[in-house]
Amino acid sequence: LAGEPSDGGVGAKLWGGRFAGDTDPIMKKFNASIPFDQRMWDADIRGSKAYAKALEKAQLVSTKEMEQILTGMDQIFEEWSTGVFLIKPEDEDIHTANERRLKELIRAPAGKLHTGRSRNDQVVTDMRLWLRDAIKTLTDNSLQLISTMVERAAVEIDVLFPGYTHMQRAQPIRWSHWILSHAVALSRDVERLLEIKKRVNVLPLGSGAIAGTPFDIDRELLRKELGFDGISLNSMDATGQRDFIVEFLFWASLCLIHLSKMAEDLMLYSTKEFSFISLSDAYSTGSSLMPQKKNADSLELIRSKAGRVFGKCSGFMMTLKGLPSTYNKDLQEDKEAMFDCFDTVQAVLQVTTGVMSTLKINQSVMEAALSPDMLATDLAYYLVRKGVPFREAHGVSGKAVFAAESQHISLNQLTVEDLTAVSPLFGGDVSSVWDYRSSVEQYRAPGGTAKSSVAAQVEHLRIWLTKQTQ
Amino acid sequence: LAGEPSDGGVGAKLWGGRFAGDTDPIMKKFNASIPFDQRMWDADIRGSKAYAKALEKAQLVSTKEMEQILTGMDQIFEEWSTGVFLIKPEDEDIHTANERRLKELIRAPAGKLHTGRSRNDQVVTDMRLWLRDAIKTLTDNSLQLISTMVERAAVEIDVLFPGYTHMQRAQPIRWSHWILSHAVALSRDVERLLEIKKRVNVLPLGSGAIAGTPFDIDRELLRKELGFDGISLNSMDATGQRDFIVEFLFWASLCLIHLSKMAEDLMLYSTKEFSFISLSDAYSTGSSLMPQKKNADSLELIRSKAGRVFGKCSGFMMTLKGLPSTYNKDLQEDKEAMFDCFDTVQAVLQVTTGVMSTLKINQSVMEAALSPDMLATDLAYYLVRKGVPFREAHGVSGKAVFAAESQHISLNQLTVEDLTAVSPLFGGDVSSVWDYRSSVEQYRAPGGTAKSSVAAQVEHLRIWLTKQTQ
Amino acid sequence: LAGEPSDGGVGAKLWGGRFAGDTDPIMKKFNASIPFDQRMWDADIRGSKAYAKALEKAQLVSTKEMEQILTGMDQIFEEWSTGVFLIKPEDEDIHTANERRLKELIRAPAGKLHTGRSRNDQVVTDMRLWLRDAIKTLTDNSLQLISTMVERAAVEIDVLFPGYTHMQRAQPIRWSHWILSHAVALSRDVERLLEIKKRVNVLPLGSGAIAGTPFDIDRELLRKELGFDGISLNSMDATGQRDFIVEFLFWASLCLIHLSKMAEDLMLYSTKEFSFISLSDAYSTGSSLMPQKKNADSLELIRSKAGRVFGKCSGFMMTLKGLPSTYNKDLQEDKEAMFDCFDTVQAVLQVTTGVMSTLKINQSVMEAALSPDMLATDLAYYLVRKGVPFREAHGVSGKAVFAAESQHISLNQLTVEDLTAVSPLFGGDVSSVWDYRSSVEQYRAPGGTAKSSVAAQVEHLRIWLTKQTQ
Amino acid sequence: LAGEPSDGGVGAKLWGGRFAGDTDPIMKKFNASIPFDQRMWDADIRGSKAYAKALEKAQLVSTKEMEQILTGMDQIFEEWSTGVFLIKPEDEDIHTANERRLKELIRAPAGKLHTGRSRNDQVVTDMRLWLRDAIKTLTDNSLQLISTMVERAAVEIDVLFPGYTHMQRAQPIRWSHWILSHAVALSRDVERLLEIKKRVNVLPLGSGAIAGTPFDIDRELLRKELGFDGISLNSMDATGQRDFIVEFLFWASLCLIHLSKMAEDLMLYSTKEFSFISLSDAYSTGSSLMPQKKNADSLELIRSKAGRVFGKCSGFMMTLKGLPSTYNKDLQEDKEAMFDCFDTVQAVLQVTTGVMSTLKINQSVMEAALSPDMLATDLAYYLVRKGVPFREAHGVSGKAVFAAESQHISLNQLTVEDLTAVSPLFGGDVSSVWDYRSSVEQYRAPGGTAKSSVAAQVEHLRIWLTKQTQ
Repeated sequence: LAGEPSDGGVGAKLWGGRFAGDTDPIMKKFNASIPFDQRMWDADIRGSKAYAKALEKAQLVSTKEMEQILTGMDQIFEEWSTGVFLIKPEDEDIHTANERRLKELIRAPAGKLHTGRSRNDQVVTDMRLWLRDAIKTLTDNSLQLISTMVERAAVEIDVLFPGYTHMQRAQPIRWSHWILSHAVALSRDVERLLEIKKRVNVLPLGSGAIAGTPFDIDRELLRKELGFDGISLNSMDATGQRDFIVEFLFWASLCLIHLSKMAEDLMLYSTKEFSFISLSDAYSTGSSLMPQKKNADSLELIRSKAGRVFGKCSGFMMTLKGLPSTYNKDLQEDKEAMFDCFDTVQAVLQVTTGVMSTLKINQSVMEAALSPDMLATDLAYYLVRKGVPFREAHGVSGKAVFAAESQHISLNQLTVEDLTAVSPLFGGDVSSVWDYRSSVEQYRAPGGTAKSSVAAQVEHLRIWLTKQTQ
Repeated sequence: LAGEPSDGGVGAKLWGGRFAGDTDPIMKKFNASIPFDQRMWDADIRGSKAYAKALEKAQLVSTKEMEQILTGMDQIFEEWSTGVFLIKPEDEDIHTANERRLKELIRAPAGKLHTGRSRNDQVVTDMRLWLRDAIKTLTDNSLQLISTMVERAAVEIDVLFPGYTHMQRAQPIRWSHWILSHAVALSRDVERLLEIKKRVNVLPLGSGAIAGTPFDIDRELLRKELGFDGISLNSMDATGQRDFIVEFLFWASLCLIHLSKMAEDLMLYSTKEFSFISLSDAYSTGSSLMPQKKNADSLELIRSKAGRVFGKCSGFMMTLKGLPSTYNKDLQEDKEAMFDCFDTVQAVLQVTTGVMSTLKINQSVMEAALSPDMLATDLAYYLVRKGVPFREAHGVSGKAVFAAESQHISLNQLTVEDLTAVSPLFGGDVSSVWDYRSSVEQYRAPGGTAKSSVAAQVEHLRIWLTKQTQ
Repeated sequence: LAGEPSDGGVGAKLWGGRFAGDTDPIMKKFNASIPFDQRMWDADIRGSKAYAKALEKAQLVSTKEMEQILTGMDQIFEEWSTGVFLIKPEDEDIHTANERRLKELIRAPAGKLHTGRSRNDQVVTDMRLWLRDAIKTLTDNSLQLISTMVERAAVEIDVLFPGYTHMQRAQPIRWSHWILSHAVALSRDVERLLEIKKRVNVLPLGSGAIAGTPFDIDRELLRKELGFDGISLNSMDATGQRDFIVEFLFWASLCLIHLSKMAEDLMLYSTKEFSFISLSDAYSTGSSLMPQKKNADSLELIRSKAGRVFGKCSGFMMTLKGLPSTYNKDLQEDKEAMFDCFDTVQAVLQVTTGVMSTLKINQSVMEAALSPDMLATDLAYYLVRKGVPFREAHGVSGKAVFAAESQHISLNQLTVEDLTAVSPLFGGDVSSVWDYRSSVEQYRAPGGTAKSSVAAQVEHLRIWLTKQTQ
Repeated sequence: LAGEPSDGGVGAKLWGGRFAGDTDPIMKKFNASIPFDQRMWDADIRGSKAYAKALEKAQLVSTKEMEQILTGMDQIFEEWSTGVFLIKPEDEDIHTANERRLKELIRAPAGKLHTGRSRNDQVVTDMRLWLRDAIKTLTDNSLQLISTMVERAAVEIDVLFPGYTHMQRAQPIRWSHWILSHAVALSRDVERLLEIKKRVNVLPLGSGAIAGTPFDIDRELLRKELGFDGISLNSMDATGQRDFIVEFLFWASLCLIHLSKMAEDLMLYSTKEFSFISLSDAYSTGSSLMPQKKNADSLELIRSKAGRVFGKCSGFMMTLKGLPSTYNKDLQEDKEAMFDCFDTVQAVLQVTTGVMSTLKINQSVMEAALSPDMLATDLAYYLVRKGVPFREAHGVSGKAVFAAESQHISLNQLTVEDLTAVSPLFGGDVSSVWDYRSSVEQYRAPGGTAKSSVAAQVEHLRIWLTKQTQ
């Protein structure tokens, strides 16, 4: 009987003809991916349209049938775009939903669309199309953040503040040098993302379930239609691998670890005790109990998301461990992870851009936090320049620090006599050491914190940014 | 002006009075937890009702005001229950949503409900109430699965099949022995879950934001009202720790690792090559391409979810790493992880129960898979019983295996002469070795695969199950 | 020929009789566990001695043979104790090493020791014995740390300092309250560890490779000899599960996450900007470049180890995911993880104890860091006590904060006129609000930061500590 | 006094001059990295030699001093090479050990070597040098494995066997197609590794502790001397980032997940039930209890190592999460992770190469495992070629499968009448469907399993391999 589910009608489950039993409702829900994979509706339509063209070229559908399929798919596109597409209970995933709708719209020719295609190659084609677009978006968001940081660094290049190692004041540096240290890390993230994009942008369609396609499907035509850079080499690998997803999830994790590091620095700087920066109210929140509180919630959210995204990455890697080759249902964990990481990273990049473009620095506090003991290395260098081996000079400077601490005075308050007591090489010219700005200007080698070196970093990144957006 | 947001009206953000700036819409969305934490609406209402009673006892609200609050909360309960509660754009989380609605319903007294309470102690109270119920549900689901397995083991106690180590046939065992090996692991999961429950069921309310409560809030009254077993010891710990969530996420991960192990075994057994079992159609699916396929999708889903749940656990642990003490916004990652793990484990337990209660075993195939080489250890034991040290007997038996392989015959087809060639101690009585059922019956010590030992395991677990449900 | 490897002599690989081929040297090294599992030499000897007694009771060895085995094992114990035991190239693991040596010492009876025993039950017995002792040690180390913290809290109970949420100053609290918030978390770690110990302390010996033991091995005798609390229920589960290892690795991870949190707080407090505490020189290090630096390396190491230990836990969980049941070689990953986590946690606990017992607090700096805005909540409570609903009072207090900020003065510098402008309810008695010590004394409810509440916490933990060490 | 530790002599801790107190022995051990970082002795010497040349160019050491340093370093190289270098108790790490030894050998000029250098830039230079070499080794090992697989695929191209999806027989494929599906995945691993190498091969030396170098150190000279491709852009990033380590650890994890997948397939194929392959004895082991067992331990070890390596990756990522920028001692977790992952991956690649080059296939068993139901898709294609839409054809074929199952016969045993009953389009020519070899030959499109397609894959990979080794 025509239309009966057991006829394998498109309205039935795809394997309609075979089963006598029925599914457990919990199992059915557990098995369904439509609640999340509907997000790929556009990629699915694009893939099916390209496939219809390949079928026509292979004479598996007539030109007229192809046109019916293309028109039907355009209408489905319209329905999704306008939010009127109706998901039905039997739509297990986006692929069956779109094909079911096509059948309703154009009847018989819809049944030909899946010829030689399997959900195994269809789903991975959809994911690659979707992720390619997502990567473009994230690249743009990243570049916007980097650009914001670079321009801020250019503007505030004259601001000095303490550089920390081990969370202890180490040496005076430029605030811009700190900003650029994070911008440089993010520029590597962009480079990594573009490398991943190359591997994402490979056509799997035409790989069937496992063995390939038995028809004259022109995979080169599919590649061109869908804008892929290359064609998958082996059908079993094409349908069963999710490396490109794992790479993306890892990318997201490392990128957010970078931002957790920057957020941690900024949180320190925005404590009352440091008071180097103030976040815009737009990126702060208050307390339901304590009226005076202004919390840097945005930074805490940024920091926390590294864990969330890493969880998706590590979870999916565990799912893959020891899985036999080719398609196994376990792979269905790929999509929620991909979507959530995209959404999370996108939000984090945008919020971080907002934070970095609106925070205010408290320059006077920053510069007041520089203290003479941070020039102890310079004191050692003073001796090095007089020929003392560094190891010895370091020891002498350490003794000077100890002498100042013993007297409860600053290092620069030691008299020449005090200093001569630790080394006879100290002279009156030692006073030149105690200038933060000239200290910083020593670091002129590439990558250093002297003004010229920081300006060169700004220039380098501006050129790099221009290249990325060409 | 009454009703103005800056008046700190309940409709405004809780810290209404302070901020001049506005939030970035992305930041606002990023910050909001109402899309997921609304799931705790009931716990939030219960917590607030108990708190109203404590406020009344402390004379911070009048009896009349308390009654207004309780009645208002009952109405809000009704609205949520019937699905008519309307979330408004300014409802950042379930706590503000319920309180905003209370204000609409009862006006002024609503503003007293939060006296001495912070969202920091409120949210963790809600979570503990919610998770306590969730643990009850998961305990029941686990017990149902274990019970299904134990009863199946009782019924099919006479079925033998190969026991495997290293995925290689090792020794004949009872099928029931295999079932019970997994049931025993699940019974430990239940015991662990009950230990966690003890630590979940502790009242944090009355801890304020960090310092405790400055009013005469009777925490013992709160404990009794909310059915907690104990009271948190330190207010900073109470509001800032999420150990109970981490423990739950880890519990979920280990439980699903157990089920991934069972699923892996069952997947092997349901391959064409093993053919030991057939899943019910209700737990299988077909292929969109290959009409003959019957895939054990349910088992693959079960296996894959171990990764998903582990991802939540590892992600949240990373979020916690190195976090300063007390409440930080990072902790907001706790709820989605908790909900997803609950939903996932519940579905997995139910589907596994369905699988285990409906699969069919192919007893004849199972028993036909027993092969004489699996009795090589018994052949060694034959010699041990004649006084040969086991190490030597093991070597002799290995030579017999080699001899049989060389002749391309089964181990039991070696003649007494063949055997005597490897050891003169072999005699005609060696034929008694080649009986699978008597081989299995040797393992009578507790925990072994003899019928009596397996029956004892069944009995032990039945008693244990009875105790759990009392 | 006697002594020939293919004779199954103890000197040969255990499965000596079977293989014609040879192993790849890399494979051999890859396969060997003796470099790390030799650490269980004592547990292995204890297990074998108990097993010899069970063999004698089962009449599988004579009393004389048993005595030879026991004496031999005692000599091997002596050799290990004194560092003279010589590992030979063919010793694949600790079990073969000890048995090989026994054979050299007592000849023939050594070959009987493995009767009915498999490495599968032997190795897991050894691990359980080893881990039981390790848990005892870690419990002691934990209790010592908690005790140090509790006693320090008792001594310094009168020191106030800022309590932080979101890394922002929130409310004045006692320094002891902070200490105890971490001590309470550690006391839960001890409770969890003792729960794990129950599940570790179960005898698997007598489970054979998979099916149990076919001889009259008295498992109850083994249990008593080895001091186990119970006997494993199912032989397949007993030899194939490593739950107790996973639980231990997770325990270690959560414990070190707790200590990473405490270390993070202490690192903040030891920055120049906070200057609340100074670490002892014994727990600090300097810089190879900067003579003035004093880095809190101990705290950084403590913080970092959470990641290390979590890595062991997550790695082993991934190894277990989807593994078929019973023994698979994959389980060999269990031991290095267990040893490393033990060593790491033990070192971290001891170093943390050192840090906590030697750090100096800078009480005057701590108390100087209290600022009037931290009493904004108290200002709201002032109004609450005059009958203003808290939500309204919170808004009013927020306006007062804003007014003070606008005038660039402290909150307590607002005149009564200034305050009356925001709410007419303010009166001259508002000055009583600005006392940090009385603010703190409000929090008298259990778990609060008032002196009496903190003293009660100290008392509670002292009693708890006494119970643990009884 | 000369030689006194507080003189800052090289024999003292580097920060000698400052500390009065002493370290806790546990803390000292906890802090020391020499037990593992000595492995970088060669990289450390190379880095120091290059640095000596830069010091000479900057006139910070004389030409004679430079030559003394170079000669001294060559002697230290000799000592390490021949195993006679003696580590002393005060040698905290490889850097202090080598410098201490230099001081012993050449006295005074040794104290100048560290001028303007910090351990922060020194250690990361050493790691990059070490890892660059390690990556070269792993690339070679990977290429050797891929080459082995490709050549095996070429030789065994005519062997058919069942392709599986969901662990169920799906369609007939070539055994070579399976081999190549894994080789293709490994070739992507090589490409990823080479991308990482680019980012590893960047010079950080000259970045000092945080601010850069204050002397005229020619970083371009250092780059050339050490063979780096580029120079780090920002000194804070250069000393504080470990992205290149995280990338390497992730690379190792994904590579081993690939091999865990291949190992899982091979383990299935080597079960008694599948019997498609036999491992060489060199890669198998026996049982201590069961004489007949031949376990594929090598495959289990390969599979298990994915977890181990992932553990290092996830652990180190957790350590990095939320860490403030620049050098923190936490970063010391980087080296053990790097070394262990290198060792593990190298061993796994070599063992896998051994396994793949020595396993024997059982061609007759493989081909006997092909069954007519695996041609159900071909039966549907038969109808497609007669114009039936695929969805309908799929349903019809499903009915045919059901009919055969009902009659307990093979699909190809259905008579033409039986088939006509399900669709009138079936005719006598349907018998042509039941040929496995012609079925396979249909998949001629790129990436398919037809002989020509598989041969093209072999050719593609051979060319790729040639390119890699040029």
